[in-house]
Amino acid sequence: MTVANKIRTVMEQSSWIRKMFEEGGRLKAQHGADKVFDFSLGNPNLPPPDQFNEILLDAVSTCGLGDHCYMPQSGFPQVCEEVAAYLTNEQGVPIGGGDIIMTCGAAGALNVIFKALLDPGDEVVVSTPCFVEYKFYVDNHGGVLRMVPAHDDFTLDLSAIEAEINSRTKAVLINSPNNPTGQIYSEESLAALGSLLQSKGKALGRTIYLISDEPYRKIVFDDHQVPSIFKAYDQSIIATSYSKDLSIPGERIGFAVVHPEADYKEEVMAAMTLTNRILGFVNAPALMQRVVACLQGKSVDIGAYLHKRDLLCEGLDDAGYEFIKPPGAFYLFPRTPIEDDVEFVRALQQELILTVPGSGFAGPGHFRIAFCVADETIINALPGFKRVMAKYH
Amino acid sequence: MTVANKIRTVMEQSSWIRKMFEEGGRLKAQHGADKVFDFSLGNPNLPPPDQFNEILLDAVSTCGLGDHCYMPQSGFPQVCEEVAAYLTNEQGVPIGGGDIIMTCGAAGALNVIFKALLDPGDEVVVSTPCFVEYKFYVDNHGGVLRMVPAHDDFTLDLSAIEAEINSRTKAVLINSPNNPTGQIYSEESLAALGSLLQSKGKALGRTIYLISDEPYRKIVFDDHQVPSIFKAYDQSIIATSYSKDLSIPGERIGFAVVHPEADYKEEVMAAMTLTNRILGFVNAPALMQRVVACLQGKSVDIGAYLHKRDLLCEGLDDAGYEFIKPPGAFYLFPRTPIEDDVEFVRALQQELILTVPGSGFAGPGHFRIAFCVADETIINALPGFKRVMAKYH
Repeated sequence: MTVANKIRTVMEQSSWIRKMFEEGGRLKAQHGADKVFDFSLGNPNLPPPDQFNEILLDAVSTCGLGDHCYMPQSGFPQVCEEVAAYLTNEQGVPIGGGDIIMTCGAAGALNVIFKALLDPGDEVVVSTPCFVEYKFYVDNHGGVLRMVPAHDDFTLDLSAIEAEINSRTKAVLINSPNNPTGQIYSEESLAALGSLLQSKGKALGRTIYLISDEPYRKIVFDDHQVPSIFKAYDQSIIATSYSKDLSIPGERIGFAVVHPEADYKEEVMAAMTLTNRILGFVNAPALMQRVVACLQGKSVDIGAYLHKRDLLCEGLDDAGYEFIKPPGAFYLFPRTPIEDDVEFVRALQQELILTVPGSGFAGPGHFRIAFCVADETIINALPGFKRVMAKYH
Repeated sequence: MTVANKIRTVMEQSSWIRKMFEEGGRLKAQHGADKVFDFSLGNPNLPPPDQFNEILLDAVSTCGLGDHCYMPQSGFPQVCEEVAAYLTNEQGVPIGGGDIIMTCGAAGALNVIFKALLDPGDEVVVSTPCFVEYKFYVDNHGGVLRMVPAHDDFTLDLSAIEAEINSRTKAVLINSPNNPTGQIYSEESLAALGSLLQSKGKALGRTIYLISDEPYRKIVFDDHQVPSIFKAYDQSIIATSYSKDLSIPGERIGFAVVHPEADYKEEVMAAMTLTNRILGFVNAPALMQRVVACLQGKSVDIGAYLHKRDLLCEGLDDAGYEFIKPPGAFYLFPRTPIEDDVEFVRALQQELILTVPGSGFAGPGHFRIAFCVADETIINALPGFKRVMAKYH
């Protein structure tokens, strides 16, 4: 009778990521932080790009009256224009400042979108493995998340998605590059998904939105590219943040952008502006809006993440782990050599290696390694990874 | 079939404040911004305190690796400790850093609290007139806001509050200094409210929380003081922000604090930490956390707001308006000389004076003047206020 029943239930089940994070804290206190290999959280370890501090200092120095005050709830108009100009180039379709809502990160953007779109019982289809928080973001606003397993290589299973779409389906949610797998969806699969949603929507007499959560868009390796979502489907909405490409997740700055040709665009934009307000975000943090406007297209040193990925992949391959080499993001999602991924993750903890069971991402039989850590952490953890594999193999 | 039905309904009804704001934009475009007297929004016109920029520059210059990254979701531990130390003095009870959750402003804090506490159908009682957004904040999480009219002088009507409490009541929400009335609740009335909630809670076999939204606590005039909530009642939670006392509402920084002796405190804190995350706030903006930690107890020049209040009160008194002289905040809530407050506000618009009808705050027969504007705006608007009053009187 104190906290809400639903919240108590969630607390009891808790998130694997947080559990591992807390276990990490205990192990660090016990053994010393330098003795524990913490791959549990996607908290970037690279510094922001060189220009970031300079631009931030400049933004602070040039602050005038009103710069820390309320602005239109979709953001400073000039900031929205800068973001739109960059996106026009990135997405390959003309985007205006009025199509943008600056938000408190991608998590804020997704909540703003779902609150704007979902009636009670409306369904959102997502390909799994997926980010565990999506379930909350949809449930917060009365929706239901429908999970559809991806193919074994973590690419979209379009037939499975099609089978899950019904008259309650309001949106399909994708995340590419993906957390926890690092997979990127190809231009062909996105085009096919767009066609599918178009025809299904027509048959069902409703708009089925494609919502693309893409905070890892700039973190891609080798010659991989993340295709334009807006080219693939008109009824699409992008949610993203500067958390990962600028290494500033604590600052809570991102945006939502609606396809300029989307049906009922004006209404959706007005709804999102309203939900940004009434959910208590009100607006994205003012100073960081002005800062990111000057950093369009910039990112941390992706080469550093590439190096970490390769160190890890080579080491784990050598130790006998099976995985797809992630083309993007900073996660590796290997198979566990035993079915019980929780047991396997506990065995890694015995080696002071902290990872997250795949079950936490609706991807059982796997585990997630967040490799946004120091190179030494990877190098020094490899013997432990090898020993645990040897134990089960 | 595009945006959620509930959201469409809200958009159709819209908020008076926003409507007036938009009307203001049109009038400004038509007549020139300097010809329009905009009292519609509580957007502070005073600059932040002198130290703010210096401390912000220092916080930027001394940023280390991790300072822009994720931290514990309740905030940087050191920031929570600084806030707790200040609050211990302000509230007169010993508060620890673990009792604090840094949030995206008071609006964020209230959503975090309601999401943590409310089961579907749970009720929250509020004294009216009140901030119009409370209805959304409660409804967002399945609750129902029960509005209870205050006394004519806007003090709490405890009998009316008592009559509204039943087995679904989860909390009573107060806001002192009040938006839109500027009223401050006395120590005696808070103590009586605390006793009432204690005995009602005991009789009903549940904890009834007192939630105090107090972003205007530092904006008080003459010798008025805002009494401690925590001294009045153990089962209390404060939600507040630095938006008004530091003039930084766009930066979205505030906190929630649970009474150190509250029942089930650990569970409530854990629930709020969870809801801060799953609602998509994740954490309060990192840089501003570090800045406000260094500005505990600081505020803008309250004397400047006092001067504005007195200019406005003297002018309106002279023109025949009836009102209580607000002891705090930067709002005046006079009676309208006719019953229809919307018609009266429209008549003021004819004089290019923008205010908000009291109906928008569940306070019909009144209108709200936000006097956080330039002195000249007040001085130059007075003849218009006088003409409109003369027209109806």
